[in-house]
Order: sequence, then structure tokens, then C-alpha cells
Amino acid sequence: MRDLGVLLLFGFLGAWLAVRLGQSVIIGYIVIGAVLGPHALGVIADAALMRALAELGIVLLMFFLGVEFSLERLRRVRAAVLLIGVGELLANLSVGFLVGYALGWSLVERAFLAGIVAMSSSGVVAKLLIEWRRTANPEAEALMGIMIFEDFIAVLYLGVLAGLSGEGARASPAVVSLLKAVAFYALILGLGGKGLARLLTLALRVRSEELFALLWLALIALAGVGASLFGLAPAAGAFLLGMIAPARQSDLGERIYSRLESFRDVFLALFFLTFGTMLEGESLRRVLPLVLLIAPLSILTELVITSSLAFLAGFSGPVALAIGAGMIPRGEYALLYAAFGQQLGLIGSDLFQFTGWYVFAMTLLAPAFMKNARALYRILHRLMPRPVAFAGTLISVTLQPMTMWSVTANSRATSRARLGAARHLLLWGAFVSLFLGALAARSLTERMLLLAIGMMALAGLSRAIRRALEPIREHLDLSRLPTPRADPHSVIAYTAHVASSVPLAALLIAVGWNDLGPWMLLGIPLLALFHFGRAWAWYRAWSRPIPTAPESAASRE
Amino acid sequence: MRDLGVLLLFGFLGAWLAVRLGQSVIIGYIVIGAVLGPHALGVIADAALMRALAELGIVLLMFFLGVEFSLERLRRVRAAVLLIGVGELLANLSVGFLVGYALGWSLVERAFLAGIVAMSSSGVVAKLLIEWRRTANPEAEALMGIMIFEDFIAVLYLGVLAGLSGEGARASPAVVSLLKAVAFYALILGLGGKGLARLLTLALRVRSEELFALLWLALIALAGVGASLFGLAPAAGAFLLGMIAPARQSDLGERIYSRLESFRDVFLALFFLTFGTMLEGESLRRVLPLVLLIAPLSILTELVITSSLAFLAGFSGPVALAIGAGMIPRGEYALLYAAFGQQLGLIGSDLFQFTGWYVFAMTLLAPAFMKNARALYRILHRLMPRPVAFAGTLISVTLQPMTMWSVTANSRATSRARLGAARHLLLWGAFVSLFLGALAARSLTERMLLLAIGMMALAGLSRAIRRALEPIREHLDLSRLPTPRADPHSVIAYTAHVASSVPLAALLIAVGWNDLGPWMLLGIPLLALFHFGRAWAWYRAWSRPIPTAPESAASRE
Repeated sequence: MRDLGVLLLFGFLGAWLAVRLGQSVIIGYIVIGAVLGPHALGVIADAALMRALAELGIVLLMFFLGVEFSLERLRRVRAAVLLIGVGELLANLSVGFLVGYALGWSLVERAFLAGIVAMSSSGVVAKLLIEWRRTANPEAEALMGIMIFEDFIAVLYLGVLAGLSGEGARASPAVVSLLKAVAFYALILGLGGKGLARLLTLALRVRSEELFALLWLALIALAGVGASLFGLAPAAGAFLLGMIAPARQSDLGERIYSRLESFRDVFLALFFLTFGTMLEGESLRRVLPLVLLIAPLSILTELVITSSLAFLAGFSGPVALAIGAGMIPRGEYALLYAAFGQQLGLIGSDLFQFTGWYVFAMTLLAPAFMKNARALYRILHRLMPRPVAFAGTLISVTLQPMTMWSVTANSRATSRARLGAARHLLLWGAFVSLFLGALAARSLTERMLLLAIGMMALAGLSRAIRRALEPIREHLDLSRLPTPRADPHSVIAYTAHVASSVPLAALLIAVGWNDLGPWMLLGIPLLALFHFGRAWAWYRAWSRPIPTAPESAASRE
Repeated sequence: MRDLGVLLLFGFLGAWLAVRLGQSVIIGYIVIGAVLGPHALGVIADAALMRALAELGIVLLMFFLGVEFSLERLRRVRAAVLLIGVGELLANLSVGFLVGYALGWSLVERAFLAGIVAMSSSGVVAKLLIEWRRTANPEAEALMGIMIFEDFIAVLYLGVLAGLSGEGARASPAVVSLLKAVAFYALILGLGGKGLARLLTLALRVRSEELFALLWLALIALAGVGASLFGLAPAAGAFLLGMIAPARQSDLGERIYSRLESFRDVFLALFFLTFGTMLEGESLRRVLPLVLLIAPLSILTELVITSSLAFLAGFSGPVALAIGAGMIPRGEYALLYAAFGQQLGLIGSDLFQFTGWYVFAMTLLAPAFMKNARALYRILHRLMPRPVAFAGTLISVTLQPMTMWSVTANSRATSRARLGAARHLLLWGAFVSLFLGALAARSLTERMLLLAIGMMALAGLSRAIRRALEPIREHLDLSRLPTPRADPHSVIAYTAHVASSVPLAALLIAVGWNDLGPWMLLGIPLLALFHFGRAWAWYRAWSRPIPTAPESAASRE
């Protein structure tokens, strides 16, 4: 009780100070934990109780994320958000995988590093936005949408990581465990969901507040235990239970919140504090190079790739950069993956220590970027080469009418478009699986088979993109382009080509990886240069005085 | 986490079933704990985490009792309630002490047994009253008043028990530790209170709900730790913090409730459950005789002595019996004392096991008595010898106008009467200390010194009683007496004699104890017989046709 009291009191002071300094509470917790922990002052010697409560904290956090989350809400998220979310995750996962590859790590460790590096902290971002009263800003809605999507993926990814423990180094463990996790989730949510939900609603009618809290804590803990029996992380089980549990808006949901929210708050604080206690000062020397390598990479990925995706999806430049900066904080998922990996003995002490310092660095730096996004934009805008800017605007003009369609407009056309978007998502998902499969496949035959399947899928994808882009022609806002005139046909074709070339390049890289290794990555700048060149050609063509080309004149009328 | 989940889920089921059967949840928790524990099914093997949380649960419970409690409220409690409370506690403590004495136990174990046997469970009673919708019944208010008083004494007693650990078997440890505890409490509440309260109010302004919960849990845990550094029980420290903390009615108090109440509920459930896990089925054979001896004694004490006191204080017969029956449940304090004693190694395993079964038996039987108090009253009424009934009515007639004065009447007379009551309380308190001192004193000289002091105090007490009774004469409701006429002078004198003879007898017993032992107790029935005889004499005198006695006629006009 002494340890608990001391840890909580200093945790409070640390968090309070962090908030005062415009930082996230997580920074305060980690610092306090590290200072009080056995590797520094040693005030907190035995952390067994704290660790148990911390574990409960992460499970409660995931339960509440599950309650907040709903497939309905995910479906309502704008296409723009999905585009940014998917792209952002792929880019960040790649950073982790590639760095792990470059360091010669095992596949399992690479997978953990990728997850740790990739998942932004929805908790930190949401709290900072509220703290700074920025929830009404244009970037806030997009950020929260991306976070909803990322929460979902983060839980799925947890399933992948859990799967890695069982199979070890057998063939394509990632694919198997991904499928296993998806199957488990689908089973629970699809079949078990309705029956379980009815049972839970019955249980919610318990009159006594005391017994109510007891029951729900028991259910959440047991959902975690159940998931770990299925080879999944406890957090994933709690998330699923949260998805089944009544939504926050209902009376019963309100009751869950009022009774259990402070358990989550306190135990989660203990999670961060305990994580801090496990950091070793000496480890910093060992992992500092890695932190200095990956943290700038992650920040660049967010500022360049995520912001670009946001711009392409139709957000204005400054807002796009604010979205990118908003994705910089790391937190609960990174720490959760690291703690999970260490618990199962899948990752070494260095990766665990790295995670602590990495989360600390990213979350510490994030507020500076988030606050100065506008100034950053001005600098970047000046530095941007004109072909690159024009290429971006070309794609943005095409995508904007598509991605920014409001959900509330429920005409037939939008519903059909949404159906199309769902089909898109499915195709992209299949593609990502193929990509992962190609990376994991050992024999050349397997890779070639996957390449063949991939090419077929790609053909479908390309056709789907063109069909999706067709009805957009009338909505194009060509006045955004700096050229006096532009041909909508060509604008759409350009975007379709770029969109199709990205998965093609990814697939080729995956297939060639085992033979050629990272050299394959050189294809990406080459591809980018090619597209920039094409954009520049269009720019010059449309800037010339009007020729007597009858088609382009007709299309402009 | 598995153990926690299982324990909470089955705890919920057990408690839910207990409530369904009209029992207290405590019954459900203890049974479930015992069944799942290592001594039965063994589902819960390692209870280290649970024990730590359980400790926190009892500390939280005491904190909330402290918040609910206020000296203001204690002062507002009616004199009737104080009379019942003091008498009830003395009687119950005596049961424990005497049984312990008869079994040849050490003073420390006797003190623990007395506390375990004496303290009723305010939690159980309050919950049953709410559950049965009896909170508006006449006995409910009195019961809650007695409980407020008992909570306060129970914490003081905890200080006494804590003091026993340090001094061991040195001279008069009970007195020393009682004084130490009182001094500590007075220090904190008197001097520290105001300054600390201001600090706490500042701390309460923390905006974030998350940090608020963190801070208060930390403060509560550290208050417990602080108290144990001072040689007191952690629970006592938390109670004091609660007394200083803002009252429930304030906004800040509301916030404390909404954030921390479910921590208390869940951790307290864990306390009862863990207590259950520590019960051994085999131990029942060893402690059953003791349970079968003490449980009926306790029930009799409540039904006879507490009910009599309630009747004497002016409650009607059936209500008085309902009050007595309502004091039967045992719970948190008994278990708290037992857990505390075991932790410090002051009590043996048998006393610990006894506590579990005793609490179980008392709490299980209580609802039956509480529900059938009216029927019980009818039986007792028929069995009561007439002299006894008349003596009771005589005292009741005298005390009723005094004890039942409403607090809301704030005339000068009542305020002076209340001042008198406070002085009374002080005198009685001094008397109890003398009584305990006389019991503990080793040498004859010490005892004689105490006797001399006691006699002087008694003289003051006797005068105080007479002076307090004087202004009552006009308010006597003589119509309640079965005799056609009565002399108010004599009625008052009778009560004053009885009231003065009780402490006199107690003091004499205490002084003679070390030499004559329990034989001194024979004085009690003798004293009772003497008083009954005197009452009977008055009855016969007042039932005769009116003589020409001029004084009694004058007083009747």
C-alpha cells in the first residue's frame, strides 16, 4: 500500500506538471516511474502488485476503446480518413519493418518494431486537442476519424503479434495469425455478439451499483483471460467485449462509464508508471542510436507522407500538415505491444527499453509540431519543387469530391459510391495480405504464384479505381489548378495511374525482396520521379496558349 | 487477472443470490470466498494481489465512513441514542472480555475478542434497511444514530488494539494505547484538521477527473500508511482523512463519491471474498464450540440489554426490540480487527477462524430476528415478570422527556441541557477509563487509588444526574404507569439511584476483579434484584387507596 500510495501521489504530481507544461500526462507518468523505479531512486522496489494492476489498466483501456468504437462509426468515417489511415499505417509499418530488416532482426522482432513504431496514440491526441480547445478545428475531426480506424487495426495487429508466439518461425506465421485473429474477431462479433449482447443487457439490469461494478470488472478481466486462452492478447478480448457492450450513449453505457471510468484512469496511470519503473538509465546509451534513427524517421513519415495523403485527400495544406503533426504522439499501443512482447519472451530487453525512450521522445516532441503546424507549412510550401506541388494538386483535385462527400447526403449515388468504397477496401485488404504473404514466402514458386494472383487482383483494382473516378468528372474543381485550363479526362487518368502504380510497386518490391533485398526500394523514388515528370508535362501543356485541339475544348464546355 | 476475474464473477453471483434470499451480500462473499479458496476447491491459489487490494478496500471503506461521519452529526445525535450506544457497547465488550477471561486468554486476545464481538456492522444494517424499504420506520433513525456513534468508537478501539502490539504485556497497555490513540486523533482533528482541510480543498480543484481520482487514492493510501507509522491501524488513518475531507453534501464531496465509490465497492467485496478464502473447513470443528457459546450470548445481549436500554430511553416496546435486533449483524469491524490482529501476529489462528464463522453466523441469523421483532416482542411481553416491567417503565418515564428532546428545539433550556449531556458524556468517559484502569492495575495500592478517584467521580456523577433530572419533573408522562397515582419525586429519585448504582457496581467489580475474579459478577443480579424489589414496593404503595399523606398530594396538584 505504501508503494501504491507513493507511486500514485508522485504520478499525480508528475502528470499535473506535465499538463501545466503543455505536455501529455504520459510524459509525466513515465518520468516519475523511471525516477522512482528500482533502476534509479529505488523507492518502488517490488512492483508485482503494480504490474498486475497495470495489466488490468490496459485491459480496461481497451474495453473502453471498444465501447467507444463501433463498426457503425467506422463505416461512417469519411473515405478521406480511410485513405489517410491506410496510407499512414502502411508507411509507418514499413519504417519499422525496414529498420528491423536493416538491423538483421528476426521476423518476430521486426513485426513488433513495426507495430510499436506505427500506432499513434489516440489517447494523447484526444487529450491534447481537448486541453488546447482545438476540438472544433478542421483537423480535429479527421484526426479522430483516423484514430478510430487505427484503434481497430491496432487490435487486429495485436492478434497478429499474439499469433507470432505460437508458430515461431514456421512458414508465413504472420498470414496465419492474421487470418486466425480475423476469424476469431469475426466469430465473436458476428455469431456471439448478438446473443452475448442480450445476456449482457440482462446483466446490466442489476439494481445494486456495487454489484454492477463487480460484475463488469469480472467480465472485463475474464474477457482478457479468455482471449489469452485463444492465443490472443488480453487487451484484444477486452476490446471485443467493449464492442459488444452497450454504447456510451445508452443509459446502460452511461452507467458503465460512471462506475468503471475511474478504474481505467487509475490503473492506466499505473500502467504508464510501471512502464517507467522498468526503464533503465544505462539502457539509454545502448538504445539511443536506434531512437535517434527511428524517431526522426517516424516524424518525417508523419509530416511528409501522412500530410501528403491528407492533402491528396482534399484537405488544405495547413490542415493537412496539422493532421500529419497530430499523428506524431506514440503511447498506449507501443507500450502495450512492448509489454506484451516482453511478457511472452518474444522481444529482447533492448527493444523493450527502446520502446520506452521512443514513446517518450515522440510524445515529448509532438506538441511542438502540433502547435507550429502552420509555420511549418509556410516553410515547406516555399521549399516544395513546382512539379511535385502540381502533381499533388492534380491528385487532390480528383480525390476531393470523392473523399469529402459527407455521410449525411444519403442519395442513391452516394450509397452506391459507398458500396464501391467498401469493395475498394476489401480489394486493398486482400492486396495487403498478398503483400505480406509475398514478403514471408520462402520459395520462388510461392512468390511467383502470389505475384500472379496479385496481378489479377491489381487488374480488378485498377478497373475499380477508374469506375469509381468516372462519375466525379462533373464535380472537379479545376480552378484549384494553377494552369489556365486543364483537361478533366487527363486529370482523372493521371490519378488513376498513380493509384494503380502504388500497389503494383509494392507487390513487385515484396516479390523481389528475398532475392534483391532493399535495392528493390530504389523503385519507389524512380516511380515518384516518373509521376512528377508526367505531371510536369501536363502543366506545360495546359499552360501553353490554346491550340485548336477540338477534344479538350469540347470537354471544357 | 484470472483469479481476480473468477473471484469477482463468483462473488457477484454469490452476493446476488444472497440479496435474493433476503441476506446481506457479506454472506454471499464469505461463502464464495471459502468455497473457491485454497482450503476448499482451491480455484484461487495465490491471493497476494487480492490481499493487497482487500487491504485497500478496508481503508477505502473507513475513508468513506469518515466522510459520512462528522463530529457535528455525532453531536446532533439524540441523547437516547448515546445512552443506547454506550450501554450496548459496554455490554458487548464485557461479553467478549468475560468469555476470553473464562477461557484463560491473554489480555491482548481478550481485547481483540471483545472488539470482534462488540462492533455491529453499520454497512449490513444500512443495506438491509434500504433493501427492505424500512428506512422510514421509527427504529431506522435510532439505528443509524447508534451506528454513527459506534463507527467513531470502533476507530478509537482500533487505536487501542494497535497500541497493544507495541507495549506487549507491560503495565496497563490498554490505558496507554487508548490515551495515545485519543491524543493522536485529537491532534490531527484539532490542530492539523483546519490547515490540512484547506490544502485538500485546493487539491480538489484539480480539473482533470483522471488526476483527481489518482490524487485521492494516493492520499487515502498514504493516510493509511501514515497511521501505521504512528502505530495505528491504516484504517484509522483513512477514517481521519475522511473526517477532514469535504462532506458528502458539498460539490467536492460529490466528486469524491462519484470517482472513488466504485473502488470502495469492488475492493471491499474483495476484502470479504479474501477473508472467505482464508477460512478453513477443518477449523470449524475447533471453533464451533466457541461460536455456539458466543453467538447466542451476543444475540441475547442485543435482544435483552440493547432492547432494554432502548425501552428505558423512551422507545416503545416493539421499536426497542427492533433496535436490539438491528444491532445483531456483525461484519466489517469484526473482520477488520481479526485481519489486523493476524497481520501483527497478535491473535492466534483459532481466533481468526472464529471471527469468520462468528460473523457468518450473526449476519446469517440477523435478518430473521430483524423481520420478526414484533412477534418476539409479544412473546417477551407475556413472559416479563411484573416488577421488572414496572421498574423499566419507571425509568423510561423519567428518561423519555430528557432523551427524546428533539435537536431542532433550540431554546435556551435545551442548549443548557445539551451542555449538561456533554458534561455527562465526559464524566462517563472518565469513568470507563477508570474502569479499564482498575481492571489492568496490578497492585492493590493502584487499585485502591483508582477506587478513591472513582468514588469522587461517582459523587460528581450522581450530583450531575440529579441536577439533570430536576427540570424534567413537569414533563413526566405519569399516565404511562399502570398505577392510579405516582409521586414524580420518587420516580425521579428511583432512576437517579439506578443510574448511580450501575457505575458504582462496575467500579467495584473492576477493583475486586483481580482478587475475587468472576465472583464479583454475582453483584449484578443482586443489584438488579434490589432495584426490582424497590420498584415493586413503589408499585404497591401507589396502587393502594389514597392515604392522607400531605406531601404526595401536594406534589400531585
